[in-house]
This record gives sequence, structure tokens and C-alpha cells, in this order.
Amino acid sequence: MPTFTSHVSLDDITRLASHTGLSPKSTPILQAAEEARANDYDAICYPLTTEKWRKRWQDMCLFPGEDVEDKNALEQRAEAWRAKPTFSLDEVTVTRLDEAEGTVALISDWLELDASDDWVRHDAEIALQQELAYASYLNFHTAILPPPRNREHVASYARAVNACLHAVPFIELSVRISIYDPSVFHASSAAKRASVLEPSSPGSSPAQAPVSAWEIWDTIHSICDYNLRLTLTLDLTLPLPSTLGLLSQWLAEPIRHIFLPASAFIANAKGYPVLPKGTQAFIRDVMKLQPNIILSGTSAGRHSRGGESAYKQYVRHLEKTSPSVQAAQTRGTVEHFARGYQDYLQAPLQPLMDNLQSATYETFERDPVKYNNYEQAIYLALAEWPRPGKILLCVAGAGRGPLVARCLSAIERSGKDAFVYAVEKNPNAFVTLQERKKLEWKEKVELLYGDMRTLVVPEKVDILVSELLGSFGDNELSPECLDGAMRFLKPDGISIPASYTAHIAPLSSSKLYNDTGSTADQKAAETPYVVKFNAINILSGDGGGVSGTCGPKIQECWEFEHPRSDAVLDRRGLPLTNSHNARSARLTFHIPHEGVLHGLAGYFEARLYGSVGLSIHPNTMDKVSKDMLSWFPLFFPLRDPLYLPSNSELHVSIWRLTNQRQVWYEWHAEAFLPVPRSAPNSDRTPNVTKRKRQSQDTVLLSPRPLSAVASSPLVDAVDVPFIVERGERTAEEEEDRGEVMLVKIGQTALHNPHGRSSWIGL
Amino acid sequence: MPTFTSHVSLDDITRLASHTGLSPKSTPILQAAEEARANDYDAICYPLTTEKWRKRWQDMCLFPGEDVEDKNALEQRAEAWRAKPTFSLDEVTVTRLDEAEGTVALISDWLELDASDDWVRHDAEIALQQELAYASYLNFHTAILPPPRNREHVASYARAVNACLHAVPFIELSVRISIYDPSVFHASSAAKRASVLEPSSPGSSPAQAPVSAWEIWDTIHSICDYNLRLTLTLDLTLPLPSTLGLLSQWLAEPIRHIFLPASAFIANAKGYPVLPKGTQAFIRDVMKLQPNIILSGTSAGRHSRGGESAYKQYVRHLEKTSPSVQAAQTRGTVEHFARGYQDYLQAPLQPLMDNLQSATYETFERDPVKYNNYEQAIYLALAEWPRPGKILLCVAGAGRGPLVARCLSAIERSGKDAFVYAVEKNPNAFVTLQERKKLEWKEKVELLYGDMRTLVVPEKVDILVSELLGSFGDNELSPECLDGAMRFLKPDGISIPASYTAHIAPLSSSKLYNDTGSTADQKAAETPYVVKFNAINILSGDGGGVSGTCGPKIQECWEFEHPRSDAVLDRRGLPLTNSHNARSARLTFHIPHEGVLHGLAGYFEARLYGSVGLSIHPNTMDKVSKDMLSWFPLFFPLRDPLYLPSNSELHVSIWRLTNQRQVWYEWHAEAFLPVPRSAPNSDRTPNVTKRKRQSQDTVLLSPRPLSAVASSPLVDAVDVPFIVERGERTAEEEEDRGEVMLVKIGQTALHNPHGRSSWIGL
Repeated sequence: MPTFTSHVSLDDITRLASHTGLSPKSTPILQAAEEARANDYDAICYPLTTEKWRKRWQDMCLFPGEDVEDKNALEQRAEAWRAKPTFSLDEVTVTRLDEAEGTVALISDWLELDASDDWVRHDAEIALQQELAYASYLNFHTAILPPPRNREHVASYARAVNACLHAVPFIELSVRISIYDPSVFHASSAAKRASVLEPSSPGSSPAQAPVSAWEIWDTIHSICDYNLRLTLTLDLTLPLPSTLGLLSQWLAEPIRHIFLPASAFIANAKGYPVLPKGTQAFIRDVMKLQPNIILSGTSAGRHSRGGESAYKQYVRHLEKTSPSVQAAQTRGTVEHFARGYQDYLQAPLQPLMDNLQSATYETFERDPVKYNNYEQAIYLALAEWPRPGKILLCVAGAGRGPLVARCLSAIERSGKDAFVYAVEKNPNAFVTLQERKKLEWKEKVELLYGDMRTLVVPEKVDILVSELLGSFGDNELSPECLDGAMRFLKPDGISIPASYTAHIAPLSSSKLYNDTGSTADQKAAETPYVVKFNAINILSGDGGGVSGTCGPKIQECWEFEHPRSDAVLDRRGLPLTNSHNARSARLTFHIPHEGVLHGLAGYFEARLYGSVGLSIHPNTMDKVSKDMLSWFPLFFPLRDPLYLPSNSELHVSIWRLTNQRQVWYEWHAEAFLPVPRSAPNSDRTPNVTKRKRQSQDTVLLSPRPLSAVASSPLVDAVDVPFIVERGERTAEEEEDRGEVMLVKIGQTALHNPHGRSSWIGL
Repeated sequence: MPTFTSHVSLDDITRLASHTGLSPKSTPILQAAEEARANDYDAICYPLTTEKWRKRWQDMCLFPGEDVEDKNALEQRAEAWRAKPTFSLDEVTVTRLDEAEGTVALISDWLELDASDDWVRHDAEIALQQELAYASYLNFHTAILPPPRNREHVASYARAVNACLHAVPFIELSVRISIYDPSVFHASSAAKRASVLEPSSPGSSPAQAPVSAWEIWDTIHSICDYNLRLTLTLDLTLPLPSTLGLLSQWLAEPIRHIFLPASAFIANAKGYPVLPKGTQAFIRDVMKLQPNIILSGTSAGRHSRGGESAYKQYVRHLEKTSPSVQAAQTRGTVEHFARGYQDYLQAPLQPLMDNLQSATYETFERDPVKYNNYEQAIYLALAEWPRPGKILLCVAGAGRGPLVARCLSAIERSGKDAFVYAVEKNPNAFVTLQERKKLEWKEKVELLYGDMRTLVVPEKVDILVSELLGSFGDNELSPECLDGAMRFLKPDGISIPASYTAHIAPLSSSKLYNDTGSTADQKAAETPYVVKFNAINILSGDGGGVSGTCGPKIQECWEFEHPRSDAVLDRRGLPLTNSHNARSARLTFHIPHEGVLHGLAGYFEARLYGSVGLSIHPNTMDKVSKDMLSWFPLFFPLRDPLYLPSNSELHVSIWRLTNQRQVWYEWHAEAFLPVPRSAPNSDRTPNVTKRKRQSQDTVLLSPRPLSAVASSPLVDAVDVPFIVERGERTAEEEEDRGEVMLVKIGQTALHNPHGRSSWIGL
């Protein structure tokens, strides 16, 4: 549920002050809070300081005009202030704890922490510290900072904010950023920077919004080292683009407040306030982050119908029609099941190493979809079984018996003659199995106690059923366990599952980065986690990217099939080494919009039998196994964030490695930016030979200047050609795309080298 | 001094074996070592394995032809090997500790750790581990690895090497990288990758050399986390380019071995072997790293004159004519003085906080250049002094008195009537001052004991002389100390120094990164150090870069002047706050060649009086104060390396910050890549409006696709225009350069936030 905050302006405060007078019991702020409560708001926010403060600061700190007589006296005043910054009573709007309680402070938005002038920046920072110290004194929990205005000095803005985060304890600092559809303005007006002296009152002007607002925010966020007390106030005063592509990057950020003035609303046919289409869609999406909505100007009668409450009602309506909110409220969905687990790091189960507890089995047995699909797969396998006679099944890893029960149902439905062995190595679960055999299954099932990799099974079986899959398919050692179980599968027998694949996608989430990176323990940043993703952004896009060589948004790493077709085994029927279960993948992703890579999302798909499967792959899950609850995705974290510009390419290497005792993953990524080979001034550099494919899978691009600047003395600076990997493409495509050079721009560390945090053991 | 190693080939070993027979006392390797010693080599290197091993591995691990009968038996053999890798006797060249002692092992260079085929890579890694384990068993200290061949799978190569670094202790692994001037070959031949089955014997072919050799090396180095046991063997078989620009990036890398076959030498007019010009220059430069030179084929009589020893003699000649080696051997140079201190991190002095020891004074007093310049400055100030009467001098911070003595010399030379006060706060040095007054200076000097910021001085002086400068100018708090001393300088008095400036340049050095980053202590990675740079590379270049907005290679951050012109002071004559000593700079560097940023180099220049100064700025030091020894540069480290592609731009922000108790620096950098706005296929995207300067100092570039791929469905992916900072440029320049977009590609953390490792206190 979002909360609603009413914005109280300096004018409102002046108006209320003239009503209240100097009553010790009530103050303008307390009155405003009362009014807001009466109008069903959760809180109010208001500027911390008055025009008097602004005037004093400007007189002291801005370059005085020529007509000022005693510059020295002015500078003396300024130095005295710098030495001991303090307010006089009429420079602040609030003085009492009860006034500040539950309210949000707006820091003077005319403070230019990123002014071009060194001394304006310097004195704005002192003022910021002074205001925040005062807000902290009054126990404000949140202060909204002046917006950044100047890309060139954003590092100074961020450094000042970072200093405040450490100087002022507890208080949450929220950076106000304006986002909008640049196409609705002439670029010239968007480019005009707010002047030092012009106040940019909330909701008045987009002038201070730099066009790549996200990049500005990310620079600040990074410089403040992803401090948890640094949050985001999105200013939606202006209409947003109606395509959500670019906006999705915001959903992985700590959005706490949304600034939504009445002026952002348009009137619908009946005169009620509604939001433009793009803003509507974004508000629906952002609802999953449960932001605080700051409404302003709602009592000004800007819209003819609905009155003051219409704005709030409309936003509540958007919330109710938000797909993610709806899903979370519908029983039986993963979203409903996962409430409270969103973006929460869980250590993956290690069922081979640990014996699971009954409660854990209980949770997983509740998944109706998974076991239905298993039963259907077993049923189909039985129904299509080609030979007459008794069919032998074995459940390898029976746990508390859910698959045994499904086998028996499937056998009954199929009308076939069949028998079930149930193998389990957990001594505790084996007691439950004995109980179920005694009470339910009787002689239809034979229980075998032991590890499927070593156990002696009385006879070979026709169908081997197992549920050893993890969020990444093979990550709970299904391949290794089934290698052992293959000893008692007949040569023409089948395995359910028949195969499974692992998939990854590059992911951004400052929350997950904070949670894995905050610990000093390096291992914690290199362990894959199970996570129900919520406030994340998948950075990749579908399509080949500029170089034409990129795969889809989510890409397959590798596959395991059971039984193996070309296995070389020892006398006991076991593989001689685990080499055949090593895997590696090198995948190329297109990154359409700038973002920061914090890790990889991992998914699996499994084929149980025929067309029956299981999937947590976002593209296929609803088709294959809708509302299946058993698996959240896997998250492979990165130790350090990797910045990826728009239209870049990410080359991810991931390995499944193994020695005689362990299985583990290592991962690594490199970032590239495709730069056109053909320069705009290419007529000035005529001595360039064009070359195409040299060998089957590589193209050597000839040494060429990076850019068009043929007249620069530095044209020979880039003399490094690149080998660009090529997918299979037709000559026409080749022609169409022109040639690009992939310029390497960054890389991650190698993660989890030599199984440093090896989380699964053989 | 370089060492020389003789390369022994498999053919040599076979030849020697046929001579030796099966003597238990001598072996081919021992014989080869003896021969090498006789020829004045320090060591030998040779392949660890024989052709037999290669044949067995290939039979087992490469895809067998169609004619192979029993594939299963082959796979059985391979699996048995994978489970327990071992050599048979005839598969290795060496078996005894005394053979291996002091020699270098060449790992089988036909192992393709970066093969395109997953299983070839997999089995090559097992073989690599087997060979290294064997080399380690025989106590080899160094093994040279097969060269990387395939850019696409270099991450796999690096991961395998990293695994070996951890699996095999102690041994140094050296990656062999071939570098050469690409213009000497047809690209088609350079692009041809070495086939899996073709051995690439040392010195035979450039085929395996990827063109951006440095990028390959850096990827490996990074993935191995800059492991100190991972070094570089540069293969100079082919001629190098004669411009050193691109080659300087190698000088910041851990080059331990240089592979230099006889075939790399050409004959001079007299028939003696010499190296091509580019290789010559590079060898001279690289000598400062004292590499091991591996010569091969020197006995084959390839050159008509000079015999076998001519190659070594020639390289020794190059060493003797190496400027850095010459400088280090010349008394009185900084290089000679700094021997043993190269690339060694030293904590900067904190003379304000700590009282220096006599030995420290002694070291610095030995600098002849610094004090000569001071004397000359004082002399000129006296000589040009405009008023008659006694001139009062004060040495603020007299230490053991070197500047007092220089004042007295200058006074004598000038023939003026003058008197010297000497202020010192170090009680121990003050004893030395008293002694010198008693023995040498008598009544010409009056000593005052106390801190110049608070001490009461009997009268105001005309000339204030101080030596409070650090490597970065203001980093030992000269501005703050002189603020205090200004109390006793007459209003028209002068300060020596009159002013000083701080300068930085972006720097790469894996050694310094290792030394600051290896500690878990975050502070250690955020403290500026004093370092005599040696194996470093300054990444920036002179010139404006592609965007035309970059400054020179080394750029000025800020300046301090004494006395201040517009000081606002309290009754005691002290500043009210230290605000006026805060500084900040935002500098833009052009990075002509790809490199990894590890930190910033810091320098200072000071103007003492008139045109007399002091400088450790590389461009001016020889002119201003040649052979001055007192200051090594400052090094501002980065916590994490930042990759910078060729032709990128680096925006560095650095701040000098202050509160009432501390002064400290913070620093931060962002990387950008300029991408041409005008696409080659721009005729297909006609709806693009061109915009130029919108305001005085920014240009808003309109949303444009990043590249030329107008036919791609993703042209709208980059819809983010950029604000590009512009320097002052003429309209013609503007026209000439075309427009570029600066795409952000990375950034560093904010370093030393809120003075976390504040190293100087007020």
C-alpha cells in the first residue's frame, strides 16, 4: 500500500500563520498536519526554511554587485556564519518536536551543491549541513534534498551529500530527480539550466532536469557507496514517455517518494483529474515498491470535478489495477506466496549435504503445479510404454513420498501393471516413508534406504523419477546423483526429468548489491543465492544489438540429459571422472539502456517427459508450469558493480566446474561498446581497406581511428583492431549493418575462483 | 642488470642425449646447462615435455578421425588419464632436482587453454595442471605458459591459469605474449589463428598473437586478480613499431622475461646482429625493469659476424645506452639517489603533527639544488628590495637551520643590511639551532621557539621564508601554517615561496595497486603515498582528445598564493575559518591508449621569488630545479582498477577539504568514450536536428542512435542525449571536429570520504 503525503508550501504556511497568530498550542505546521489528516493524508511535507534564510544566504555568499559598499563587512559576516552556522528564528518554518513528528522536511531547493562556481558550491554545502543538522535536531526521519542541476559538477553534489550522510545520523536523505519524456519539450528549453538565483519551486519547471536523469542519480548513488539512507524522490511533474523500456531502470532503485503535483494531472472527459498515459503506466509499475506519494496543489481547484480527494482516489485506483499488486493479492500465485520474501537473499538448499527437515518437505509438497506435472509426465510415460509386462519405476530421492504417491496415481490412471521402488538417503524422512507404506501404499511400493549413488537396488528399472532440480537446474547436483542412479536404469529406460537447461540474464538491483556487498566476508559476495526478484531490472534486451551478435534477453548456458548417450563407465556402472558434468558458456547480451550490473539472474527449464515440463524461465513459466511455487530464481552476485552504457554489449562467461570432491560455478563478465568503423568524415581517411570474414567465426577488423576526427593529431591513437565474434549471418545482413568495432570498456573480477565459496559438495 | 637465459630446444636435447647416453652422472639438461654457463649465460630454459606426450594427449583428447575403430577404448584411456593424470618417463625432458635448479620450464605450448572447443579446453587445463604439478615437484621456480591465442575464450584461459596459481604453490607462472608492429604483416596472415594441431614453436610465427596483445594480457591479469606470481614473458620475435606511445603501456606490467630469438636480429652493415629500431628502443626502455633475456638459436650461425656471444653483447650494449640505466648510475641524479625506493610506498611526512628526527633533517639538507634555489630567491628578493633601511627576514620553520644559513649567505652576497628571525616549534631541533647560533650565526640571528601560528614575534618582518611544501605542494599544510605566520609579515612584505600549484595525472601500475590493495585495510587504499615512480605508465596524452575538451597530460588542480590578497582576519590577524584553503578541481584527461587506471600521480611546482622556483612536475623539473632530491611524487591510489579504452576521456574530481580540525583530500573519476554523433548511414535517419551551444559552457546533444545501424529494430534504444562540456573553441574548430557524444562507461568510488584516513591534522 502506498502512503499519501500532502505538500505544504511556504504560502500555505504564511496563510495558516495569519489565522493562528501566536498561540502556543497550535502552529501553522500543526494546523496543516491537522488539515491533511482530515483529508485522509498520512503525512505532510514542507520546506524547512523561509525566504528570510534564502535572502541572508544569498547576501552573504553570492558575489555582491558593484554597488555594495563594504565588501569586507559582508565577507566578515559570511566568515562568522561559516565558522558557526546557525538560524535565526524567522529563518525556519518549524521549531518543535511535535511539529516535525511524522513529517518530511524539504531542504532549501535553491541550494546549488553542483553550482559551477567553486564558492557557491562551498557555501551551499555548509548551508546543507546546517539545515540537515537542524532537521536532525528536530527528529525528522526524512529530508528531501535539492535536485541536482549540473551534470558537470554532480560529483561535487554527491560528495557533499555523502559527507552529510556521515555527519548527520539516522535521517534518510532523498534525492529529488525529475523524469519525463524529453520529446514533449523543445530541447532548447530542456537544456536551459536553472540559474543560481532562480528558485525552482516544486512542480514549476523541468529546467533543472538533466536529460539522462538516471545517469545523474546513479553517479550520486555510487559516490555515496549505495548508502541505505540515500533514497530517491521521483518528480513526475511532467508526462512520461508511454513506452516503459527506459523507465524500467528506475524500478531497481530505492524509490521512496513520488512527487505528483495537481498540475501533473490532466482532466478526463468528465473533468476528473487523471494522469497522462505514460505516467499512469509507470505509477502502476512502481506500486510494487510501495512508495510514498507526495501530492501538492490538490486544493487549488485545478480540475472541475472530484474535489481535493479525487487525486488520491485516482492514484488508489491505479494501485488497484497494478498487475503486480493484483498478483500479490491473488491466492495461488507465486507473488502471493512470495510476499515477505521479495528481494530477500536465501541460501540455496543443499539436500545432498544436509538432511532436510520435515517442515521443509511440507512447504515444497504444497506446490500443486509441480506434482501435477510430474504425475502427468509419469502417466504419459506409462501410457506410451512400448513393451508389455510389468513396468518398474524407481523414485530416486523420495523424501516424504510425494512422488511415490504421484507414481501410484499415474499407474492407476494408466491401467498398467507397475511397481515402484522408493530410494531415500535421509534417515528421518525414511521413517515417514515407512509410515506411508504401512498406512497407504502397502505392497505397491518397496522402500530402499541409502544414497542412490552407492545403494544396491534389487533389479534394474524402466522409469527413474527424481526431483533433484535446483533453481539453476543442476545446482543441487542432480547430474551427479543421477549418474549414480543410472546403474539401476535399464539400457532403454527413461528418466523423468529427461533433460534440463540453465539460463541467465544480467541484472541490476542496488538492494541485492547492498545485501551481498555490505558484509566484509568476501565469500558472501560470491555465493549464489535464491531470491524472489522484485525491485530489479534485467538489463539485457532481445535482439542482436548493434554488432548483430547478441543473443536474447535471457540466454541458455547449458543442458543436461538423462540418461547420457555416450557414457564411459567403470565396472560398477559409475563414471570414471566427473569431467562430463563440467560445463561452460560464453554469452553475449545486448544492453539497450544504461544500467549498473550487480549480478546475474539464474533460471531453469526442465523437460520431464514428452511436452510436460517445469520452468521458472520468465518467458515460458506461465506456459509450462503456471503458478508453480517451488523455485525462486538464483542470483549470482558481483563483488563490484559494473557500469554499462546504453547500447553496450556484455560478454558473460560462466563455468560449472568440478573436481573429485566439489562442484561449483565461477563467473566473469566483460563490457564492450560497439563503435561504428565507418567514420562520418571517412572521405578524409581514404587509405582504409575493408575486410570481412577471415575465418569461420572471427572477423578481424583493420586498424582504424575510433572516431571521425580525421583532422585531429591523434587519429593514430587507436591503432588496435578488434576480433569481433560473428554469429551466422547472411551476406545481406552483413551489408546492412555496416561494420562496428567492439571497444572493451570494463570487466568484473572472476567470481568464486577455485570454488572459494563452494556451496555444494559431492 | 638483466640476466641472460639460453633457450634449449627439444632438438638440442635430442642431440645432447645422443652424446651422453645413459650416464647417471650427466643428462642432456645438465650438459645444456654446462654449455650455457660456458657461454656466459645465467640460466637455461627448455620444454618440460616431449613429442611423445603431445602425441598421447592428442590421441586421447582430440576428436578422433572416422577411421578410429574403438572410440570407447580411447575414451576409457582418456577418462583414466583425467582421473589420475601422470607422465611416463619418455614424456618429460627432466626428472632430477639438480637438472631443474635455476632453470625455467616451458609448459607445452601446444596446449590450447582458450580453444573454441569446450572439451579441448577442458583437457588442456588438466594437462596444464599436470605439467605444473610436475614442475613444482622438481622445484622449478618459473614456468612459462603457452600463449593465449583466442580473444573469444581468453576468460577461460585466465580462469585455468588462476586455478593453477592456487593449486600449485610457489611457482611463478609467466604468460607469453607476442608483441609487434602490426603494419609489418598483411592482416590476413596475422588474423589466421594457430590451428589446434600446429605447434607454435618459439620464434616461429606471429599467428597466435592477437592484435591487441595488451588487452588480452590485462584481461588475464585482472581475472587472476593481479596475483604476484603471475608475470609476463614478452615475445619480441617480430619487429616493434618505432613509436613508443603504445609500447609504454607494457612498462607498467610485471615483465620478467623477454623472449628474443636470433631470428629477431637483423645484420648491420658489418654483418653483426643488431635489433630493428623499434625493438632497440623498447629494449632500452624495458631495461629499467631488469628483465631476464631469453636468447635462442644463437649458435645457429644466422649472422655472419660476432659468433654466439654477439647477441648477448649487443643487448648489454643496449642496456648501457638505456637512459634510465644511465641515470641510475650517475651520481647526483634523482634516479641514483632513489635506487631501492622505486615504486615503494612511503607514508608522507607529517611535520606539523610529528617532530622530525635529526636524521630526517640530515637527509633533506643534503639536497644541494633546493637550498641553492632558495638562496638565489632570497638574494634576488634582497637585491630588488625597494626601500632603504634594515630588512627583516624570518625563517618560519627553521628546522636545523639550513634556510637560516642560506639567508645569511644571501644577505652577505647582496650587501644589504638585514636581520634574521628563526622560528621553530620542534624542541629538539631548537637545541641544534641554539648551537649553530652560538657557534656560527651569533647576533645575526634571533631564535624564537614556538608554533608560527600562535607565537608572539617581536616585530613584523619584510620577508618570510619557509619550506613547508610537500610533494603535492599544500599537502603538509603550508597554507594553514603560513596563514598563521602572516601575522608577523608587514602588509607589503613578501613570502618565499610566493605561490605553489598542485598537479595530477592518471597513472597505471599493477605493482602499486598490489601494494595498496593487498591489505584488507580500506584506509591503506585511500591514503596518498610518496612514491618514486618507476614501472608506471601515465595514461593521459597531450591534446584535446576526440571531444576537443581535454587538457594536457599533466594538469594543474589549484594554486595557493602568499600573502593572500583579500584575507578577512580576526583581531589576532588569523582567518576566521579555514574555508579559504578549501579547493576543488575537475579535470578532463585524454587517454590515447587503453590502460587500467590504478591511481593519480601528484606533483607540485612552486614559485619562490621572481623566476626562481622548485618543481617536481615532469615537464618543468629539469628546467626549474634539475636533480633536486627532496621530493618524490605523491600517489593517490584507487581501491578498484578502472579500465579505460583507447581514446577515452577521464574526468577527475579532486577536493582539498577542511574542517576546524583536519585537512584532507577526496578524489573520484568517471570515464567516458566519445562516440561520433554523425552516423555513416545518417541518410537513413533524416529526422535528426543538429544543435550547438545552448548556453555558455554546455552543449546539449540531441537524442541520437549510438551507431550507424539505421536498419536495426533497436535504433531507438539510445535515446539519451548527453551534456558535453566545452572549452573555449572557435567556430572553425567546432566545425572541424564534428560532434561527438560522450558516453559514460565507468567510474571509481569516492576515495577517502569525510577524511576517513585523514593524514594531516591541524
